[in-house]
Amino acid sequence: MKAIVFSAIGKVALEERPEPRLLAPGDALVRVRTAGICGSDLHIVDGRDGGVRLGTTMGHELVGFVETVGPEVTGLAPGDRVVSPFSVSCGSCFYCRRGLTARCVSARCLGVVDEEGRGVEGAQAELIRIPLASSTLVKLPETKHDGSPLADEEALLLGDILSTAWSTVERAGVSDGSVVAVVGCGPVGLLAVLAALHLGASAVVAVDGVAYRRERARSLGALPCAPDFELVRRAIDELTEGRGADAVIEAVGSPSALDLAIAAARPGALIGIAGYHTEEAYPLAMAPVYAKNLTLAFGRASVRPHIDRLLPHLLNGTLSPAALVTHRLPLEEGVRGYEIFRSRSEGAIKVVLTNDPAPAP
Amino acid sequence: MKAIVFSAIGKVALEERPEPRLLAPGDALVRVRTAGICGSDLHIVDGRDGGVRLGTTMGHELVGFVETVGPEVTGLAPGDRVVSPFSVSCGSCFYCRRGLTARCVSARCLGVVDEEGRGVEGAQAELIRIPLASSTLVKLPETKHDGSPLADEEALLLGDILSTAWSTVERAGVSDGSVVAVVGCGPVGLLAVLAALHLGASAVVAVDGVAYRRERARSLGALPCAPDFELVRRAIDELTEGRGADAVIEAVGSPSALDLAIAAARPGALIGIAGYHTEEAYPLAMAPVYAKNLTLAFGRASVRPHIDRLLPHLLNGTLSPAALVTHRLPLEEGVRGYEIFRSRSEGAIKVVLTNDPAPAP
Amino acid sequence: MKAIVFSAIGKVALEERPEPRLLAPGDALVRVRTAGICGSDLHIVDGRDGGVRLGTTMGHELVGFVETVGPEVTGLAPGDRVVSPFSVSCGSCFYCRRGLTARCVSARCLGVVDEEGRGVEGAQAELIRIPLASSTLVKLPETKHDGSPLADEEALLLGDILSTAWSTVERAGVSDGSVVAVVGCGPVGLLAVLAALHLGASAVVAVDGVAYRRERARSLGALPCAPDFELVRRAIDELTEGRGADAVIEAVGSPSALDLAIAAARPGALIGIAGYHTEEAYPLAMAPVYAKNLTLAFGRASVRPHIDRLLPHLLNGTLSPAALVTHRLPLEEGVRGYEIFRSRSEGAIKVVLTNDPAPAP
Amino acid sequence: MKAIVFSAIGKVALEERPEPRLLAPGDALVRVRTAGICGSDLHIVDGRDGGVRLGTTMGHELVGFVETVGPEVTGLAPGDRVVSPFSVSCGSCFYCRRGLTARCVSARCLGVVDEEGRGVEGAQAELIRIPLASSTLVKLPETKHDGSPLADEEALLLGDILSTAWSTVERAGVSDGSVVAVVGCGPVGLLAVLAALHLGASAVVAVDGVAYRRERARSLGALPCAPDFELVRRAIDELTEGRGADAVIEAVGSPSALDLAIAAARPGALIGIAGYHTEEAYPLAMAPVYAKNLTLAFGRASVRPHIDRLLPHLLNGTLSPAALVTHRLPLEEGVRGYEIFRSRSEGAIKVVLTNDPAPAP
Repeated sequence: MKAIVFSAIGKVALEERPEPRLLAPGDALVRVRTAGICGSDLHIVDGRDGGVRLGTTMGHELVGFVETVGPEVTGLAPGDRVVSPFSVSCGSCFYCRRGLTARCVSARCLGVVDEEGRGVEGAQAELIRIPLASSTLVKLPETKHDGSPLADEEALLLGDILSTAWSTVERAGVSDGSVVAVVGCGPVGLLAVLAALHLGASAVVAVDGVAYRRERARSLGALPCAPDFELVRRAIDELTEGRGADAVIEAVGSPSALDLAIAAARPGALIGIAGYHTEEAYPLAMAPVYAKNLTLAFGRASVRPHIDRLLPHLLNGTLSPAALVTHRLPLEEGVRGYEIFRSRSEGAIKVVLTNDPAPAP
Repeated sequence: MKAIVFSAIGKVALEERPEPRLLAPGDALVRVRTAGICGSDLHIVDGRDGGVRLGTTMGHELVGFVETVGPEVTGLAPGDRVVSPFSVSCGSCFYCRRGLTARCVSARCLGVVDEEGRGVEGAQAELIRIPLASSTLVKLPETKHDGSPLADEEALLLGDILSTAWSTVERAGVSDGSVVAVVGCGPVGLLAVLAALHLGASAVVAVDGVAYRRERARSLGALPCAPDFELVRRAIDELTEGRGADAVIEAVGSPSALDLAIAAARPGALIGIAGYHTEEAYPLAMAPVYAKNLTLAFGRASVRPHIDRLLPHLLNGTLSPAALVTHRLPLEEGVRGYEIFRSRSEGAIKVVLTNDPAPAP
Repeated sequence: MKAIVFSAIGKVALEERPEPRLLAPGDALVRVRTAGICGSDLHIVDGRDGGVRLGTTMGHELVGFVETVGPEVTGLAPGDRVVSPFSVSCGSCFYCRRGLTARCVSARCLGVVDEEGRGVEGAQAELIRIPLASSTLVKLPETKHDGSPLADEEALLLGDILSTAWSTVERAGVSDGSVVAVVGCGPVGLLAVLAALHLGASAVVAVDGVAYRRERARSLGALPCAPDFELVRRAIDELTEGRGADAVIEAVGSPSALDLAIAAARPGALIGIAGYHTEEAYPLAMAPVYAKNLTLAFGRASVRPHIDRLLPHLLNGTLSPAALVTHRLPLEEGVRGYEIFRSRSEGAIKVVLTNDPAPAP
Repeated sequence: MKAIVFSAIGKVALEERPEPRLLAPGDALVRVRTAGICGSDLHIVDGRDGGVRLGTTMGHELVGFVETVGPEVTGLAPGDRVVSPFSVSCGSCFYCRRGLTARCVSARCLGVVDEEGRGVEGAQAELIRIPLASSTLVKLPETKHDGSPLADEEALLLGDILSTAWSTVERAGVSDGSVVAVVGCGPVGLLAVLAALHLGASAVVAVDGVAYRRERARSLGALPCAPDFELVRRAIDELTEGRGADAVIEAVGSPSALDLAIAAARPGALIGIAGYHTEEAYPLAMAPVYAKNLTLAFGRASVRPHIDRLLPHLLNGTLSPAALVTHRLPLEEGVRGYEIFRSRSEGAIKVVLTNDPAPAP
């Protein structure tokens, strides 16, 4: 089968790979119809998130159709359309019972295979093997409540970035009337704008250095701002009588973004950190976090329970994130998809790869 | 000035009334531009909610412009566009500090004057006196975040029925994935549908005996159902594997509606009761409430804090309730407005009365 | 084996019964060392809680030692000291996953066998069969953190009345500073006093018609009061500047107790109803529940998760409920135990039956 | 009057100072009967917490009697026994309305006067001036519910370290069944042990390098442990099947203590940081906080609302912190009090200074 693989540091390639097979009785094979390219794919490709073996199939965002299920898989049958969270989870361990599926004792991210060959191949391919399928995959209905189709592209966002954005916004305590700062208007940041507004933010200041991303944030209802301490603080101060933001989302993953998040926060604020930080240590300035009684929430989102929670919103029409998918290419053009995503050319926000013709359900 | 008054049991009339004056240093006069007709107006007119003196100006829903303020009023100035909750509150008593403004020690409902003349005249008039204005009235911006105007009609709903619906839905514990039953598709019930969907309901079964109201519920995203025990239960059972509704809203105010709400609930459900009950005692069947571990939440909504919470949603576009305003008439035609509302003719949901020409702000 | 059985309406008897055997692979047999007599036993014996077959072994409160386990039982071994909740639960159904084990789809109360012989024999015997043992029974450590022994009597309370009292107090929203009314100073009411104080109640007015029970409430830290509307209201009003109780626990199960609970509540209060009501319908006065925005929480407590939550308190010494066990008799004297409990003679609060000599663990 | 003043870096002295006078209409003068010596006093004396003028009267913990009130003070009268939080607050600003009194726009710590003379003199004196007295001071009853006297020493702890410990334990999310690590067994750490147990911790591992402090922690119910990464982790792993602590309290204020707190935490844990950090930047290791999804909560506790919340616990006997007061000296021996506290000689935990004879109330 065709797959986009991590071929060298800084490079992906379209290659022919053997089709996956069931390896455990709880596995399922899923024929991928739509796969996303995510910012964390770039962390792997560029070697910032090390330990992934060259030749690994990339990708951890997918919607597809169940092709085969192992003998212990329950609740799923061939032909079911499903979305997968970016990491698999058992559904029954200490962490899963608390909704912390990202830290499931059996958690493995899709598209991460180490030098010893341990791990799970990715979703930017025709087929993917999903371990722990019963507790990982979520079946999708064909239509929304109003009868319109539920697009793969919308459901795909549930499996990673919409759930990541939402859970970060919740950890930041956003509620009715909050003034929110979102640092970084990539896909996660923009979905954080959407989530914050849904949860009642009275204003969202959205910070990014790229003009078209700021424009996108504005179209979602945010007040765009360049990533300049003084400008950001001035924008927030105007909204808060000089106090600072009630809640801050850091959706970049750099020390300067975290600096800015801390600077933007008012006393008592919560900061949700969705950005993936590759620096070893961040020099946390102790005076402001003490003087402002800040709470900092770190870590990978637990997507699986959020799929259950947010799917109703997609179906009842109260959330409409699909506009953030700006580019669709066939899987065969995946290398170009990475280029578009990486270079941010053509106003790229979210780039997805599709397999056609779609399999009969 | 012109006013719609309670002229006899079962009757309202357009009459000429003296303009209100400031009576206390915390009063404000508001020139009404838009006033609503509410189901509870009918309770007064029809004598079910007794104790209101004939001749009282009706109405407790309004958006208008501050005309004059007393010497102790802060934060308001002539020309400010404002919405009022249906009852005034001091903002500082035991109850107000807990957000229970409906039970403020100084609470008085607009449009309720007793036989001794105590009380506050209503909003279906050209001018209204608002006591405790600083802590009661909420200033409205001209525009939403996207630059479009914030209509009086939308803001008006904040002051009573949208806040009532929302708070009842919250007391019923609706959250992501809830299956909800809403008994009654009058204005409050329909707004409860809207609120439940916004809060992530995976399905709302909306019950009403009137076809156009059910149709309206359907257009909002609910599954309409006639008020028949078996039909309601069947509709809910299909959605819940036979368990019953996770949350129920009773928005009628009759024993049979409450019977139906209890029957529709699953074990562990919460029932929010927005309907105003005029029966003296409801024969509460103890076996089902015990066997199903039900929680029943009664009482008048505390609107004031909900205006603050929900206004951001109107401004950021995540809530759009204005479609429920089906009829607009000049104040002079208020008597006909009551007829339309009461007879449910012409598909009436919400009927508002307007004063024109609008005063210059 | 010896057992206390329901021998006729109004009567229990000590009889010889066949020892229970494992009936399902998930069953365990438990050798009872300590069994409680509970107010709900009297409901059965007196026929108010109908449908129980004559000859059924009574009792649903026990601490004992696992004797045998079926082949599918996990986490338990012969010799383990265990406490059981009064009803068994599967641990995995819709309700169990939400902590509502009282409404488990497989829930059955111990000591309830119907005319067709369906049900589970009770705990006032030498041995008891516990279905769904893995998800029902909780293992007990020998000692508390300070090295002192954890008495059967204390642990026994976890399995029913302490957990019932605690969960009712929580449903009534008691928190730091609450003024609480507890209607009824039987075992559940007295434990509700204990729970309310632990959760920070600034005052608890404890209402009962029996002097020694009021005295017991006083010794726990409550303000005792006779069950007279005016006296109760006066006591609460003094503590609340006339507002009424922030939270009310109804621990009797009669219409007049519920009347009193409603009368004692302040606007906005929550009322947790632990009492078991045998009247078919309670005439709920709609004016006060509306005018006071009351919330009424009904239903059987879900004990199983509370055992996990409260056991740490017993072990770390922050809760010490054992003083409420006023009488201990050998199982053989169980009939007299019922008499003492029923007649409230000798200051009876909680009466327990013991099997001796204790089996070697 | 006599006062303990900051006389030189590293030194305090007993000096004669002018009595304070009312400076603003909201001020009150309080005759101090009991004043505490706190770890943060040492930060000032040793120059780690800079900006305090030499000659400032030390101390921010006190119980005393109102002597005089300014004309705008309400709710307080001469003779009232009161406790003060360590910082004054207005009760009505944005922060105070949210319970964040530590960040009141008018907040000032007692015992902090800067080089320009701005600030408030401290409590280790015969008299203290308390600004914003109406919203700062809390009146104390004479007796507990059981009729025994409420000692100054107990109430004193409410004003700073008990409230600090409690709020940190709450920010760390401790609840029934939590396994908790407390890093540092000074006064705040030991009170955090007490708070964690009250809130249902199933085990508390208490870490300190000083043997008598560990012993004190053990006597409160904790498992003591030396501050060694491996030992701490081993102790916690045994309690949690190798997961780590559910909640961690950092009550030291050093980089190594925070390192240890992070190492002790399980995935998904919350860390409450009560320690005052004087390092400019803490090198926050990003891998563990991401990989463990940690939440870090910083900042000075907001004591004022906690006094209201915890006072009921002192009065109803569910909290008994007084045993932590190990030393009482007359104010005149305050210099020796500092030596005892600083050197940890004689098993010092909390040292208080008293003024005698007590004024007639």
